[in-house]
Amino acid sequence: MSLATPTPEDLRHAIRNIPDFPQPGIQFKDITPVLANPRLFAAAVDLLTANWPAGSVDAVAGIDARGFIFAAAAALRLNAGFIPIRKQGKLPFDTLEESYALEYGTNTLAVHADALTPGSKVLLVDDLLATGGTAVAAARLLQRLSAEVVEVSCLVELAFLKGREKLGGLPFRSVVVF
Amino acid sequence: MSLATPTPEDLRHAIRNIPDFPQPGIQFKDITPVLANPRLFAAAVDLLTANWPAGSVDAVAGIDARGFIFAAAAALRLNAGFIPIRKQGKLPFDTLEESYALEYGTNTLAVHADALTPGSKVLLVDDLLATGGTAVAAARLLQRLSAEVVEVSCLVELAFLKGREKLGGLPFRSVVVF
Repeated sequence: MSLATPTPEDLRHAIRNIPDFPQPGIQFKDITPVLANPRLFAAAVDLLTANWPAGSVDAVAGIDARGFIFAAAAALRLNAGFIPIRKQGKLPFDTLEESYALEYGTNTLAVHADALTPGSKVLLVDDLLATGGTAVAAARLLQRLSAEVVEVSCLVELAFLKGREKLGGLPFRSVVVF
Repeated sequence: MSLATPTPEDLRHAIRNIPDFPQPGIQFKDITPVLANPRLFAAAVDLLTANWPAGSVDAVAGIDARGFIFAAAAALRLNAGFIPIRKQGKLPFDTLEESYALEYGTNTLAVHADALTPGSKVLLVDDLLATGGTAVAAARLLQRLSAEVVEVSCLVELAFLKGREKLGGLPFRSVVVF
């Protein structure tokens, strides 16, 4: 890699493929080599937030647990607040919840009922868009708080899973597409 | 709050006490009001990293899940890499593991075996120091990778639990003490 600002192609090359994790047949995209490299990490945050100048959004929302990493860094970069969207039972105050279907069973996400003032502009940042179920549930939680989800921005998009089509009219951005 | 840079006292006042969460008798310190406020969030990151100019550490390590939030933002602030320390079974590559005692049972943390090059200077950032068991296990993982843990920096210290005494010779910093 040169000393020039890293590109999405540099990020793609740094992402490590782990076969059969967490179960046979899954090709897991391991982003930890991107996180560990200061220049790649900063470039990933810049690319995730490229449509949003500092001060243009009120908050960045991130999803428990790995999604917190890029979303919290993006919030700092944009001088925005950070809103954690967590697994059920983890947030201590009054919450709203949204459940969504997994291949087997369901998952439930929660957000604090007082996390945002109505009309807030919120950027939803996650590391990965797969089937889109998680992103849709997270966006619904933010909308139920009367926030405006200005964009869903993901580092990695698994295009063959067509998660993008599930997002309805939500603006969507991905940095690296597999 | 004035327009001056927020102080540790401002952070203390923003932290919300939630009685009896996650179980009766526990006074949970809810940091989400700090996260949601852009100025408080940025000030918290500045105070957590106050001993370390940008470029002075190689990486910031954060602990799954809530600990990722301040640690990832701190990594960006310091132009450092980010090392996730996760619950057992979450990291996809070869890992080292450390178990530690909880009130009932044990918990196990893991880090990727190739997360750091030997001799790396690592700042360990977490939101809360309680009994210290989590921080000690995380620091041990980093030391087993032959990294130097230059400091354990926590936003909130519950002093009555004496976690600080468990840290041995590790440099320790907390921003708000209860």
